[in-house]
Amino acid sequence: MIQKRLEVTDCKYLISSMELMARHLKKVVAELDRQSIKKMLEHIINARAVFVMGAGRSGLVGRAFAMRLMHLGFTAYVVGESTTPALTKEDTVVAISGSGQTRSIANLGKITKEMGAKLITITSNEDSELGRISDTVVKIPGRTKEDVGEYDERHLRGEFAYLTPLGTSFETSATVFLDGVIAELIHITGVSEEDLKSRHNKLE
Amino acid sequence: MIQKRLEVTDCKYLISSMELMARHLKKVVAELDRQSIKKMLEHIINARAVFVMGAGRSGLVGRAFAMRLMHLGFTAYVVGESTTPALTKEDTVVAISGSGQTRSIANLGKITKEMGAKLITITSNEDSELGRISDTVVKIPGRTKEDVGEYDERHLRGEFAYLTPLGTSFETSATVFLDGVIAELIHITGVSEEDLKSRHNKLE
Amino acid sequence: MIQKRLEVTDCKYLISSMELMARHLKKVVAELDRQSIKKMLEHIINARAVFVMGAGRSGLVGRAFAMRLMHLGFTAYVVGESTTPALTKEDTVVAISGSGQTRSIANLGKITKEMGAKLITITSNEDSELGRISDTVVKIPGRTKEDVGEYDERHLRGEFAYLTPLGTSFETSATVFLDGVIAELIHITGVSEEDLKSRHNKLE
Amino acid sequence: MIQKRLEVTDCKYLISSMELMARHLKKVVAELDRQSIKKMLEHIINARAVFVMGAGRSGLVGRAFAMRLMHLGFTAYVVGESTTPALTKEDTVVAISGSGQTRSIANLGKITKEMGAKLITITSNEDSELGRISDTVVKIPGRTKEDVGEYDERHLRGEFAYLTPLGTSFETSATVFLDGVIAELIHITGVSEEDLKSRHNKLE
Repeated sequence: MIQKRLEVTDCKYLISSMELMARHLKKVVAELDRQSIKKMLEHIINARAVFVMGAGRSGLVGRAFAMRLMHLGFTAYVVGESTTPALTKEDTVVAISGSGQTRSIANLGKITKEMGAKLITITSNEDSELGRISDTVVKIPGRTKEDVGEYDERHLRGEFAYLTPLGTSFETSATVFLDGVIAELIHITGVSEEDLKSRHNKLE
Repeated sequence: MIQKRLEVTDCKYLISSMELMARHLKKVVAELDRQSIKKMLEHIINARAVFVMGAGRSGLVGRAFAMRLMHLGFTAYVVGESTTPALTKEDTVVAISGSGQTRSIANLGKITKEMGAKLITITSNEDSELGRISDTVVKIPGRTKEDVGEYDERHLRGEFAYLTPLGTSFETSATVFLDGVIAELIHITGVSEEDLKSRHNKLE
Repeated sequence: MIQKRLEVTDCKYLISSMELMARHLKKVVAELDRQSIKKMLEHIINARAVFVMGAGRSGLVGRAFAMRLMHLGFTAYVVGESTTPALTKEDTVVAISGSGQTRSIANLGKITKEMGAKLITITSNEDSELGRISDTVVKIPGRTKEDVGEYDERHLRGEFAYLTPLGTSFETSATVFLDGVIAELIHITGVSEEDLKSRHNKLE
Repeated sequence: MIQKRLEVTDCKYLISSMELMARHLKKVVAELDRQSIKKMLEHIINARAVFVMGAGRSGLVGRAFAMRLMHLGFTAYVVGESTTPALTKEDTVVAISGSGQTRSIANLGKITKEMGAKLITITSNEDSELGRISDTVVKIPGRTKEDVGEYDERHLRGEFAYLTPLGTSFETSATVFLDGVIAELIHITGVSEEDLKSRHNKLE
């Protein structure tokens, strides 16, 4: 059965999935709240250091963001990596969680606030454990029926879609949004792509 | 100067960067070569295990893909993680490298071929060290002048753009492409989103 | 001052620290409780898969153990790595925490028990959050005054020593203990060092 | 057979393995070359930043060392982690490799020297790829017949032993040696354990 389907595939689902994501990104752009983004930019620029955290694929999204912050010249750390130092109240923590309820990240969010640091949450769910305790929440809209074109409609069953399973839609949107934050920070700080290249890891 | 720019920002560069990426994704979809993707699907489905590797942000793209392969029920490993076992000739290695020339990944590609395993490379540069030794190359087009709309034109200087610095454009395109591969594999293997959820890490 | 001390150093503290650790290991061996180790071996051998977790340096100790379990042919995962699947009630989780109170690990310990899996804790502190909920606790004695010979006595101030700062003494003891567990498992399972080599990562 | 052996085990191999390691550590201490250690201390203290690298379990040993360097107030990075910046010629790289021949680490060692940074190698094999290009080599003696007491003799077959399989003996010795380096650096720099605690990760 699997070999049969493999034989006849014309990559229709692959194409639909990618087109769906491109459409979804436009919707995300349209719904962004610029006031909360502006506060996020302030918390990053005024921080002594930026700490990024997330679980699973959201954690990978966070690492990609922290790496680029470092390329820009910010002091940036990933929570859980070996040489990440102690958080201080001069720091900003960026939490990435589609549901805003990931247990471990919500707990670290509480510690962040206990220590007096700033907490920014990137989430689809403002009314969540992380959302409620954050200084700033940037809402990234999640997967909805409207995202799905006629081609894909049959793949939408109740609350989930085969084309962007689990948190895929949020994770990619958050990645592209955070790369947008980097673009804005490049403009604000005036660094050049040459500066970025000069800070890129050479040992790879 | 930085504080001044921060004050007046209307997130124009952030928005442009995200729109640029949405446009770029459509171009990527249009230029995909279905024959090479089909071979990639075969190498994954017929492998004993799939090993994923990449350096820097491409390595994060690979991890996100490996995690989803595991959710689908494939045996998947990330090269460099603690419990990744020995490669065998029944396995398939997926290398992710925009330039196709990342030294460490090209070296591991050579070992892969020495051991008789299959090597798939996701790259913008087919005519590269990795491209030349791979069983299958999937080309993801990189950043070009046509990607950039009127709004952003002034940010393109020669070979680089401020809106998607360094490998950003490739990395996000590769992420969305590999999530498309997952969508196709979901169709081919017939797993449900419930199956995926049941394999999702509970300790987070 | 630093340059001056560097000039005249005869590595006395380095030597004392290493000798202290060698002495401490003997004490650890003498105080091990074989009944709890035997239960630990049972939980590992009878598990569908073994999951290892710890924060900071204890997390590194855990990874080293998980890697060797994999070399022995066990199905082993590190909590937090990319392709670690869902925990099931047929699995065993090994938690490593000197204090037994590390917040994130204690929380994951609770989830482990909620899911019905076995929980083994390696700790210096049996009477701790993790200790109290575990199926088996292996106690690794921590740093005490008796560990310190005449040479080093002046470095012991109250409850801490300069020679093995923070959790060093526990972490190294736990590493050597877990390598002892591997030695015992090698005997029990009858694998050869050749078997181990054959499972060792080739892509490095 | 396995269940039978499990039933009757008295942890003899576990105990022997731990005692063997304690004995081996004493031998390692006795054979250390203080001149090369002194040069290592100089390269670390005079570096702008210290980068640590190793593959597999040696990589974990390196991470534990980098973490402690950070606790001491040094700027320390692990090669391969997300926010590790570009190496400069003012930096020192510490490579950990029992054989001194691990392909990926030897390649990174070459890049280190091409870039004009200092290279320190911790190895059992001075006459190796890494050993030959390093500014300083600290030799950690490997497993030999003399390490093995009467109790364990039968476990030694040719060049390998069941009690400390593969690189175990080197890895633990390197861990304890590098913690000794930390003890010496604590003395030289005059930091207190309180200073160390204050830099310890709070988000765990």
